[in-house]
Order: sequence, then structure tokens, then C-alpha cells
Amino acid sequence: MLSSLVVKDLVARALKEDLGAGDLTTQAVVPPGKRGRGEILAREQGVIAGLPLAEAVFLELDPTLQFHPQVEEGAELAPGKVVARVEGSLASILSAERTALNFLQHLSGIATQARLWVREISDYPARLVDTRKTTPTLRLLEKYAVRVGGASNHRLGLDGGILIKENHIRAAGGIAAAVEAARRKAPFTLRIEVEVTNLQELEEALAAGADLIMLDNMDLDLMRRAVEITAGRVPLEASGNITFSRLREVAATGVDYISCGALTHSSRSLDLSLLLVQ
Amino acid sequence: MLSSLVVKDLVARALKEDLGAGDLTTQAVVPPGKRGRGEILAREQGVIAGLPLAEAVFLELDPTLQFHPQVEEGAELAPGKVVARVEGSLASILSAERTALNFLQHLSGIATQARLWVREISDYPARLVDTRKTTPTLRLLEKYAVRVGGASNHRLGLDGGILIKENHIRAAGGIAAAVEAARRKAPFTLRIEVEVTNLQELEEALAAGADLIMLDNMDLDLMRRAVEITAGRVPLEASGNITFSRLREVAATGVDYISCGALTHSSRSLDLSLLLVQ
Amino acid sequence: MLSSLVVKDLVARALKEDLGAGDLTTQAVVPPGKRGRGEILAREQGVIAGLPLAEAVFLELDPTLQFHPQVEEGAELAPGKVVARVEGSLASILSAERTALNFLQHLSGIATQARLWVREISDYPARLVDTRKTTPTLRLLEKYAVRVGGASNHRLGLDGGILIKENHIRAAGGIAAAVEAARRKAPFTLRIEVEVTNLQELEEALAAGADLIMLDNMDLDLMRRAVEITAGRVPLEASGNITFSRLREVAATGVDYISCGALTHSSRSLDLSLLLVQ
Amino acid sequence: MLSSLVVKDLVARALKEDLGAGDLTTQAVVPPGKRGRGEILAREQGVIAGLPLAEAVFLELDPTLQFHPQVEEGAELAPGKVVARVEGSLASILSAERTALNFLQHLSGIATQARLWVREISDYPARLVDTRKTTPTLRLLEKYAVRVGGASNHRLGLDGGILIKENHIRAAGGIAAAVEAARRKAPFTLRIEVEVTNLQELEEALAAGADLIMLDNMDLDLMRRAVEITAGRVPLEASGNITFSRLREVAATGVDYISCGALTHSSRSLDLSLLLVQ
Amino acid sequence: MLSSLVVKDLVARALKEDLGAGDLTTQAVVPPGKRGRGEILAREQGVIAGLPLAEAVFLELDPTLQFHPQVEEGAELAPGKVVARVEGSLASILSAERTALNFLQHLSGIATQARLWVREISDYPARLVDTRKTTPTLRLLEKYAVRVGGASNHRLGLDGGILIKENHIRAAGGIAAAVEAARRKAPFTLRIEVEVTNLQELEEALAAGADLIMLDNMDLDLMRRAVEITAGRVPLEASGNITFSRLREVAATGVDYISCGALTHSSRSLDLSLLLVQ
Amino acid sequence: MLSSLVVKDLVARALKEDLGAGDLTTQAVVPPGKRGRGEILAREQGVIAGLPLAEAVFLELDPTLQFHPQVEEGAELAPGKVVARVEGSLASILSAERTALNFLQHLSGIATQARLWVREISDYPARLVDTRKTTPTLRLLEKYAVRVGGASNHRLGLDGGILIKENHIRAAGGIAAAVEAARRKAPFTLRIEVEVTNLQELEEALAAGADLIMLDNMDLDLMRRAVEITAGRVPLEASGNITFSRLREVAATGVDYISCGALTHSSRSLDLSLLLVQ
Repeated sequence: MLSSLVVKDLVARALKEDLGAGDLTTQAVVPPGKRGRGEILAREQGVIAGLPLAEAVFLELDPTLQFHPQVEEGAELAPGKVVARVEGSLASILSAERTALNFLQHLSGIATQARLWVREISDYPARLVDTRKTTPTLRLLEKYAVRVGGASNHRLGLDGGILIKENHIRAAGGIAAAVEAARRKAPFTLRIEVEVTNLQELEEALAAGADLIMLDNMDLDLMRRAVEITAGRVPLEASGNITFSRLREVAATGVDYISCGALTHSSRSLDLSLLLVQ
Repeated sequence: MLSSLVVKDLVARALKEDLGAGDLTTQAVVPPGKRGRGEILAREQGVIAGLPLAEAVFLELDPTLQFHPQVEEGAELAPGKVVARVEGSLASILSAERTALNFLQHLSGIATQARLWVREISDYPARLVDTRKTTPTLRLLEKYAVRVGGASNHRLGLDGGILIKENHIRAAGGIAAAVEAARRKAPFTLRIEVEVTNLQELEEALAAGADLIMLDNMDLDLMRRAVEITAGRVPLEASGNITFSRLREVAATGVDYISCGALTHSSRSLDLSLLLVQ
Repeated sequence: MLSSLVVKDLVARALKEDLGAGDLTTQAVVPPGKRGRGEILAREQGVIAGLPLAEAVFLELDPTLQFHPQVEEGAELAPGKVVARVEGSLASILSAERTALNFLQHLSGIATQARLWVREISDYPARLVDTRKTTPTLRLLEKYAVRVGGASNHRLGLDGGILIKENHIRAAGGIAAAVEAARRKAPFTLRIEVEVTNLQELEEALAAGADLIMLDNMDLDLMRRAVEITAGRVPLEASGNITFSRLREVAATGVDYISCGALTHSSRSLDLSLLLVQ
Repeated sequence: MLSSLVVKDLVARALKEDLGAGDLTTQAVVPPGKRGRGEILAREQGVIAGLPLAEAVFLELDPTLQFHPQVEEGAELAPGKVVARVEGSLASILSAERTALNFLQHLSGIATQARLWVREISDYPARLVDTRKTTPTLRLLEKYAVRVGGASNHRLGLDGGILIKENHIRAAGGIAAAVEAARRKAPFTLRIEVEVTNLQELEEALAAGADLIMLDNMDLDLMRRAVEITAGRVPLEASGNITFSRLREVAATGVDYISCGALTHSSRSLDLSLLLVQ
Repeated sequence: MLSSLVVKDLVARALKEDLGAGDLTTQAVVPPGKRGRGEILAREQGVIAGLPLAEAVFLELDPTLQFHPQVEEGAELAPGKVVARVEGSLASILSAERTALNFLQHLSGIATQARLWVREISDYPARLVDTRKTTPTLRLLEKYAVRVGGASNHRLGLDGGILIKENHIRAAGGIAAAVEAARRKAPFTLRIEVEVTNLQELEEALAAGADLIMLDNMDLDLMRRAVEITAGRVPLEASGNITFSRLREVAATGVDYISCGALTHSSRSLDLSLLLVQ
Repeated sequence: MLSSLVVKDLVARALKEDLGAGDLTTQAVVPPGKRGRGEILAREQGVIAGLPLAEAVFLELDPTLQFHPQVEEGAELAPGKVVARVEGSLASILSAERTALNFLQHLSGIATQARLWVREISDYPARLVDTRKTTPTLRLLEKYAVRVGGASNHRLGLDGGILIKENHIRAAGGIAAAVEAARRKAPFTLRIEVEVTNLQELEEALAAGADLIMLDNMDLDLMRRAVEITAGRVPLEASGNITFSRLREVAATGVDYISCGALTHSSRSLDLSLLLVQ
């Protein structure tokens, strides 16, 4: 579900970042031949995401290490739960530990939050989706964690969908002109979504043949009327100012998608640690 | 304060990540010659960090753009404050916008939190420092944001200091042996820090000639006794389970440094946006 | 219309490929200070594409060169037409010449063929589109040349659209199951296209809610019936065995798109040359 | 015969180009554990080239795939001939298929054309050679395909031979001066070839001690006289305006090499496809 | 002791440098299937360093080769001693030979010289250390060879220690101000070293709390007085104009470290060769 | 004379190597706005080589610096001679200083030695040439320095000439077979050189039509006889065990080229320094 090409490159860069000229402490202090075994443990409740990354970190540093996940990707963890075991050269385990945990804690933090939010609206048909508000250079990983958590992905990048926003509309001279230009010039394999802020723009977008419509920063009442007007002709996405406390109300308006930047840009790390048994 | 070589590489990668095959919407919809002007605005209170990154993003995408910061890096922002202006090709501004904001919001989030924490203990001599618990591949940026916020940096990577932890000690056969090995084999330009969990280990570390000592997960009382015993011979670092609510108490024990992973791994994004005036 | 990031990387690689350890002839034979002027000339009729690439090649090798296009990208050329002028260090012009021409001739060849094919069906609404059958590592350039020639792009890569082919259908256990899985798991910003080989599959794809349908290797009669059955509910794409001689007949069936791999994988180079006036 | 370092790098880039953020269709639709078997088939007559590339593509994407060539590199194929088998994860085969075929079809197209041209003059001693008119970034592969087809390589890049052309001669102040400069400054391990357009220049080049002489755009009569005058002292290369229909006449003049850009810049793709048996 | 990530990257680059478009001689002349065995032999006395590099070169070019070191890294060699054996494809051995030997000869040259110098002062407590005067892009390898030879490393790069030199002092407005700035702004995990040229500066540096002091270009008498004054409060490093003939005298002054650029920038290659037995 | 593409890449890598996470001393101690001026001075007699590298280092780190060479590349320096001036941000000058000097000192060392050796045989026609025994990843720079010193280059890499050595001959089944294979399969733009160890092999190589012959480790008498036998039919290269003290004797035998690995693998650094005037 996560391209091995992406993983390999990021893992190598992350290790170089932490190691630089080398793990000078371990090189000086730990005898080269010494072997070790370690367990990655959950220290709080949450959803695990990033096991393939953690494995790739250990194996990139030292292909002779053995990494054994003890839970499925996406599993819910209780505090104390053993997430994975790693075994082999003690020096290698110590040198890779922090980088492996950094990936795992960051992605598990995102998956944990996504799971919580998805649960909150699980009795509505609306789907929770992410945005492009991701940590620079880690987007594919973070969007993967969103999926592990049970939410869905908006476009992966500027080349993964047409999204006509207010500034595009103004530059093109109106919604109809903008949609027409996109239909003529962009690959026809991409849906054309139009961002609207009021009901008149909604009508224009529907008339222009938009495939999707984003309701930008509308209040609940406006959203409900947008749902009525659209009447299922195209899917509607609620966007802007989506917080956990408003989530159920927004879902209740009948929109199809609810997008939220906080899923990726403001989750906190999940507390995991590596316990070594030499 | 931030190496231009590091900036250039990360900015190029972040843009490639978002653009992929190109900003297909803007290419299709925005007339190539059209010019635009935009303002980056604070939408909540906070500390700005990352202006050189935002500038580099716009200029990497289009060297003919003009970027004018309106505040100093590290300035405190009120909601509505104009942070920077950007001017030139509208298409270029639109295509670079998200990547520039993603850097700026992430780093400003870290600087904002660091500033808050530093203020909390400003009447104590203890210094707040970060850890290696950073987002993979963004460490140098995040540690830079920590400095912008007013806190200090622990080592930048495994090659930027000797930190002998419990597992190193066990592998070496004791604190004295570990310190001696580090002193013999590692570059003598690095301080040797030893992690201790009780007072006996503290005594051993002092006897072994450690340059710094990390008090790992000690309670307040133990920390106070460690400070007394050490009596200023080497600096002491409090580490583990450092939360905002405990911060003043820990500082009051008399330790020299307080390190905290949450500074970098669990800050939330600062809310900023780009407003375009075409 | 072509991302500068993509251009920069490819141009640098192409120059390295040709220069290797350096243009040993020019280094040995041409006096360093000597200046030159050159004209890129058409030696046969065609459509020019790739001027930004040619410019980038000259400037990457030597930023002090001056490159002046004499025609618009996409212009139709008569033999002898001056396409561009380049001026500056003679040694630099000679060293960059072949790489610049190789880009220009390859892309102009594609644009020339695309223009010819598009003209052939210009009185039909059907649009000519390319495929993923492109020269490895040059796809974005070749798809750009297709657009310069007047044709349109199918998806740019495996992440730029959902295309459910026969093997996917079989693996998923039928068209309905495959479409449903794609709708559930892939970003909702991508259209879902289904490949069908007969009318029964067409009905299934329509019933499953496909956004686009590809008619794979159908004969003209079958295509016409597919157009009737579909009745404009979704766009139809004719694919497989599309040759220039069949083009008008296929367009006449009423399909919306006609895709053809030969546009990119089997065009021949346009004959251009650089004439130097020292 | 083809450096594994070159192959690895190009294959990784080509896969990244096609996959981008991933094969979203296959990821969504094909069950991860499902296995498949496929056969690469010839759909027209030709010469196969690029099997090591195709293998490298499949293994780069998924090292657990098994790839078994069914013919030797360079074999002549009848339509329907099985070229190779691939077996393993169905998802991996589907994701790699297009990239593998793109390499194979492009290189086989070149080899097929080269074989045809070489056959045409097989009763003459003259050898058919390629040029630097290759697709940017694919030169080493294309020159490899030329060899697989039975033709020979001219220099691989600007650092693989000294070729003094008209502009070099003018800059140096004559043929003698240019040859002398090259002999003095360039590595002595490279032959010095001089391009001449008439018999007087030929005499000058011979007098200057050129190692090879290129007869540029000469008519048949002039070539014959050049062969007589040279009398075997150095090899002669016929260049410019070499078409299939002129090939035997040119070979009959007695020249040693016939070089032709069309071998690499204007071949068409060979029709191959992958048939899956799940 | 040497990060595998560093080795892999450098080895790949070195092979590409030597092979370029390929080992054209071996490709043309050596039958592909032919196997060979080779021995790397010392042709003069010295210390071996770089065996992991040599192994990595052979395996990067051809993972099916077998490389068997016959001595330990750091062993002292007599002329004729077999250092390592390599076995497998003859063509691969021949193509990798020069690159493997170039690494081995360069690093062994450094280790040999370091061993000689270390021996010269082995009866003194002073330790011999290297500098940042290394061959660009090979620093980590060269500093590794210094360690293999028995000497120690000064900081590995500008981020691996604080070294306040004359120009820093002048810019900061004095030693005290410079040390204070470093203590406030740089990571506290790095020692602060101050370069001094006379005894007054030494006193200032001691008073400012420098962790280390470099005695720059002092004569022997001055060094002795510096040692007396410092009285073990901080370690002292003698630097500048360190030659083999002065080594014992400098060590006799009682300094703790003696640093010397010649260790890395002016060693000569150790004579090794590869003898093939086909 | 040195490809800017090669320079740019190496300079960036060298700076990253030295700076790592940044020049922490300068960042902490030197005020950002402070300006400085520096002079690069010769501290001993020698030949300068590498000025374009030094310039590239300063400009890569900070494009606003100004670098002014004060002598021509290849000039002979007396101690105290000002080689270049650099002006601009003091912090930038300090951070780039060591890397710029490392390039300059290494290449000047090579050029200085080459000049000395070339002078030694300047009254003979024989030309001094280098080998592939270069520092890994720096070959093109080192071969450039050899040229600056006045000597010539052997092939630049394994793709820049055919050199048939003893092991190739044995694998091919004799000199004639090896030469024939090379002539048939390698690009005809490369000379074919054969290594011989005695006069019988010399005769075979001449008979086989070798373009160049390398006399491997022959004594002076044997070389003289080889020169007589060859009688100017092809150039002869003396190789193996070439030392400064034997140089004139070898040149006196009448060979055309004398190759020597020590030129690149065992030169010592030229002593240069940067003096700052703030």
C-alpha cells in the first residue's frame, strides 16, 4: 500500500540525517560483535502505523538484522503492548533505534487521531479526508497513515486532481470559463472540483459541469442548503474550520466528504519506546 | 543561522513532492502572463519561523518572484498581522503557495510552543533544550525553529556529541569503562554525557569524569539531591516525562538543562494563510 | 506549461551523458575566448516543440550564452526557417549543440506527428490522446510535445487516474467489485475508467458507475453500438490498433477520445540543424 | 555488455516516473497476496533487445518476482513468440508491466532496424555505425541496442573520441592547426577524426596525420575518388543523408564506415505485449 | 567503525567515475563466462586500511564476486604479503580492480604514515590527531584511516566541535565574548576550543572557561610555559608546523594533543597490486 | 578546460562534507552582517592549480561573495605571493575557507610536481603522462591539475581508450585475438593499446596492428631495443617503476610517452593559507 521506492529513499535520507559521520558513541563504546534483542513497546493507547518504515530503517542500516512485527499495521494498542521485535548486532540496533522510532511515532500519531475522528462520524455516510497541508517531504507517508487510521485521501499532489479555487476562478474570469479551460487542457482522467463560498457560486459550478464541489468555510445552515440544491448530482466536500467538536454537526448536513488539515499537520507523536535485552 | 545548502535541497524536494508532474489546475486555468500579489497573514497568535524557507520555495519555483518579509524571523504575531508579501507571476505564486505555507506553519508552530515554554521558566537559570525526537529528514529545520523560539539545541545528530545511555553502559561493562572508551576513541572535540537513573550511577559518572550528566526520569526530590551532590562540577540535564505543567518544578530543582521531545515531535501547526490580490 | 523543475533535472542529466569527462575536441581545438553565433534551422517541414529545453541546455552549460527563439513554440516550420539564434562563447555553443538538438528534434518529431493526426479528424468532436507508451524517463516531455501538437493527454502516470483493465477486473472478481474497491480506496479526485472489450462488459461498467469507459480493440461496428448504448452518460475512449488510416473511421463512430501509443513511441525525429557563423 | 550501474539508475528513474505516488488502481483493486504469471509476447516480427532492462524493472519494483527470458538477447522473433516469463505477486507484475515493456519495445525497435540495415550491406566490408543523435539520457541503452542489432558504435560521447568538424577547423585556423592542437592537448588514447567536405580538405587531413576521416555529405562519385586518394592509409567514414535506399551504393564506394543518425533517432517501437495468466 | 551508508555512496561514485560508459576493453576482449581468481599483494612494507572499501567496490560492481580478506584491517604488511583474495567473473574482477586498489592504496598510505608517527611518540602521553585538511569528499575515509593507523580524530567537520580561531575572536570582540556567544548559541554537547598564539591569550581563554585550548604555532619554550600555566585545568593542543622531525620535542613539552594536517593531505600511496590467476 | 558540471557537483559535495549541519562556531560567534576581506597566499614555492574550484566553493556557499584571482591558473608562485582575493560576508568566507583551500592545495600540489617532472625531461621529445591511479571521485580534477602542470593525460577512464593488458591477452587467447576482438566490438574512435613485457610480445602487437604499445616494466636496454624495432610505426609508452631519478634515462631511450602513477597518487599538498583582513 506504500511504494517501496518511496520508502527506500526516505529511510536512507533519515538515517543519513541522524548518523551524519556516524553514531560516534556506539562506535566507541559497544563491542562490534555483541548481539542484542529489543522490543518496541506502546507506552500509551493508540493505532500503530509505519511498521514497514521501521523495518526498512533497521535493514537499511544493517541487512543482517531481523525485524518481526508482533501486530498488524493499523492495530489498536494498549499501553505495554509489544509492537515489534528486532534482533542482531547490538550496535546496529542502537544506531537505528531513534530513526525507526521517529517514523513510527509520527505516523502512529496521525493514524491514532484519524481513527478517533473517523469513529466520531461512523454512523454517517460522510467520509473524512485529508488535505495537502502535510509536513514537507513526508506527504506520501502521512497520507498513508491517514488511510491506516481509516480516513481517505484527497488528491496526493497538484498533479492528482483539478481543484479550482477562488484565485483560479478570478484569473480565468469566472467559474464557467475556469471549468471549461480545465476540461480542455488537463488530462481527462482527473475529476474537476470547484471551490464555492456561497449558493450562487454553487449553482454556477453545477451549471459548469463540475465533477465535485468544495463548500469552503460555509456555516452549517448553508451546507444543508447546498446539499439540498445539489441533490446528489455531484459529491460535496465540506472544507475549512473543521474541528473535532464540529465533526458530527458537519456530517449531519449530508455532505459527502469532510476534509481537515489538522489530520496531518497537527497530530502529536504516539509514545513508543524500544526496550533492549542484551 | 540556517545553512543555505540544507535549505536548497529540502525546498527542491518539497516542491517536487507537491508538484509532481505539475500544477495541472493552474497550468490549465491561469493565463501565463497574469501577475499577482499576495500577503501571508497570521490567523492566530504565535511566533514566526521559516521565512527563509518560504522565500526559497517561491524563488526555487520561479526566480523572478519577489518576496518581502514584513516582520523579523522570530517576531510575535497578532492575528491579522502581515508576515510577508510576494509578487510576480500569479501562476507561480499559486503553485508554490501550499509548499511555502507548509514549511512556515510547521516551523512557526514549533517556535511558538518553544517560546511559551521558555517564558514559563525565564526566571530560572535552567535552559530548555530539544532532543533527537524530530520529524525524519526535517531535523535541522526543526532545531532551527527551536532556536528561533528561544530554546537551545541538544546534539544535532549521533555525530554531534557523545551520549552514553543505559544500553551502552551495559555493553561496555560499566560507566567507567564506557567513558574511558569514548575518551579514547571518539573525537575529543565532543563532550561526553552519561545518562544516570539513580544517585549511585551519578557518583560513578562523576568519578569517571563525565562532562555532562543526564538525569533520566528522576522525580523532583532525586533531582534536587543530584544537584546537591554534583555541586556544579558538571552541568546536569533533566530528561524524561517533561510536560508543561511540571516545567517550573523541574527548573526549580537547580538542573542546568531540561530536555523535551514534545518541542519538536508534538507541536501543532500555526495557522497562516496567503491572501491574493490580483 | 512544462515544470522548470523537470526541465532542469533532465537537461543536466542529458548534458552529463554527452559530455562525460568533457568535450575533449572543443577543449583542445577552440580558443577559450572565441565567440560565435549560431542559427537553428528547419531542414524539413514540421511543428517546433522543445524550445524551452534547448534554451535550458545552452544556459545550463554556460549561463552567459544568449538564446533567442525566432518562432513561437508550436509554430509550423517551412524548410530553411530559422527557429532560434544562440550567441556567446563558441566553445560553449559547440559543446551544447548536439544535446540541444537532440531534445528539439525528438519533441518536434512528436509534435509534428500529433498535429498531422489532429488535423485529420478536426471536423469531428473526438479528441486524440496519448498513452503511457512513452520513452522511459522522458514521459513528461513527450506528453508536453503531444499538447504542443494539439492533441491531449491521457493520465500522466499510474498515480494520475484510475484505469481498471482486464487483469484488475479478474483479480477483483468482476467489474462491479473493482469499481467499488477503487471508489473506496483511491483518492476521490481521480476519475475511474474501466476497460471493456464487449457490450456486456460495457453495460456492467455503466451499471457500476464508471466515470469513463475504454473500448479496447473493438471493431467499428461495435464502437458505434457502444456509443448508442452509452448515450452520452459517460465519455468513451477508443483504444488499440489506432492507425492513421483508420483515424477518421474511428472518429466517425462518435467516441469521445481516441488514444494512440504511436504518438509517442514511434514518431521520427524532425530534421533540424545548427549553422554557425563565427 | 551493458553496465549494471547504468541499468540500475535508469530503471529506478523510469519506475518512479510511471509510479509517482504509486499504482493507485492496482493498490485499490488487486488483493495484496494474489499471485500471477505473465508472458511477454512478440506481436510482430523483429529482433529482441533489452531483456536485462525488463528484468531489472521487475526486480527493482519487487525483488521477489521471478523473470525468465525464453530467448537470447538479439534473437529474431516471429509474431506470437514468447520472449520472457514473469511470475510472482500479481500486483507487482501489473505495476511494473508498462515500464518494462517501454524499455523492451524501444530497444527492440532499434535493434530490429539495425539488423535490417546491416543485412542490406552484409556482402560489403563497410560497417554500419550509429551517431550521437540519440534520445537524451538513453544513449548508452540505444547504442547497446545498435550493437545487439549487429551494427557498431561511433564514439559514445564527446569524451570518447576526437572529431574535428568544420567549426572546429575554422576556429583553429585550418585542418593542420586543429589536428596539431588535438594531438598536443587531448588524451593520446583517442583517435583523431577530421570531417572533410571536398578532396582538397581530404588531402589536408591526410597530410595533417588524421587517424580517421569523415566524408561529410559527399555524393557517390566524390566518395569513390576519396577512397582512391586515401588508398587505405586511414579509414574513411561516410556521413550525412544516409538512407536505406542509398545504403548499398554508399557501401559500394569502398568506404570503411557508414554512419546514420536514423538508427537511433527515428526507429519505431517493436510491438510486444504482456499476457497475464492469473 | 565506518558507516556503511558512507561507503556505499562513495564506492558507487568511484566506480561510475572509472567505468563511465563501461570498461570497453574488457567488454570487447574477455569472454563473459570466464572465471578468475586474484590476490591483492603488498609490494612494500606498510599498514593496510580500506579492506571494507575494496570489498564494497567488487560487490557493488558484481554481487556474485567473493572477496576474502587475508589479514585484519590495520595489520602491518611485509612485501609480498597477500592482503585479500577475490574470485568470480574475470571480467568483473578486471573492471573493478583499479577502483578497489585506488581506495586501498590511498587509505593504506595514510594509515602507514599515521602508524609511523604514533610510534615516534609512543612513550609520551600526548596523542597525535588529524585536522580538517583532508581530500575533498573523502574526509570520513581518511579520518578512518588515521584511526586505523593508531592516531586520533579532531572534529570531523564544522558541526563536530566549536573551534574559535583568531578571526572569530576579532569578529566577536575578544576571547571572552566569543566563548560566551558559543556557550549561549551552539549545542552544549560540543566542547569549546580556543586558539591562542601567546600566553596572554592563553590566560584569557582559561578565564573565559574554554574547554580546550589550541596553541597555534608556538615555539617549544612557549608551549612548555603554556603547559605550566594551564596546569591540567584543560587539555592543550599543539598545532601548526608539526613535522616528523619535531614530533618528539613537541610531545616532550607536555601538551595533550598534537595535530598535523600532513597526516591526511600529504601521505603517499602504499604500493599494492592485484595478481590474477585465471 | 574543466567542465563546469563536474565542478558544481564536487564543490557542493565537498561543502556538505565539511559543513554538515552547519559551521556552528561561526554561526554562534560571528555577527551576520559583518564583512571581511581575505587573501589566499602561497607559503612555499609552487604552481597554482584549482582557482576555478576555489571560486566555485565560495560562490556555492554564498553567491554574493566576490572572488578575484590575482594570478593565472598554472602560474609559478614564490612564497608570500597573493594568489586570490575574496570579499564579502565574513561568516561566509570563514565557513568556506577550509574547503576552498583543500581543493587548491591538493591540485596545486599535483601541478607543482608535474611541472618539476616535465622540466626534468624538457629537452627530450618524450611526453610525461598520468595514469588511472587517482584519488577516487577526484580523477577529472587531478588529471586537470596534471595538464596545468604541463604533463599530458592518459585515458580518463575505462571508456576513454582500449588498453589490452596481460590478463586480457590471456583471456582472449593471445595478442592477435585480443586486438581483433577490440577492433570488432569497441567504438572505432578509440586507439587500441597493447601492454607488452618483452620483445616477442612487441612483435606480436605490431603484427596485430596495435595503435599504441605500452612497454611494461622493461629495463632501459630493453626499451632501447623496443624503440629500434618499432622504428616509429606506432608510439611507445614506458610504464612501471618510473621515478624522478630514472626519468631522464627513460626519456633518453626514445620512447614517446612516460606514464607515472605517482603524479596523482603521491603528490603532497602545496602550502597555501587564507589571511583575513576584517
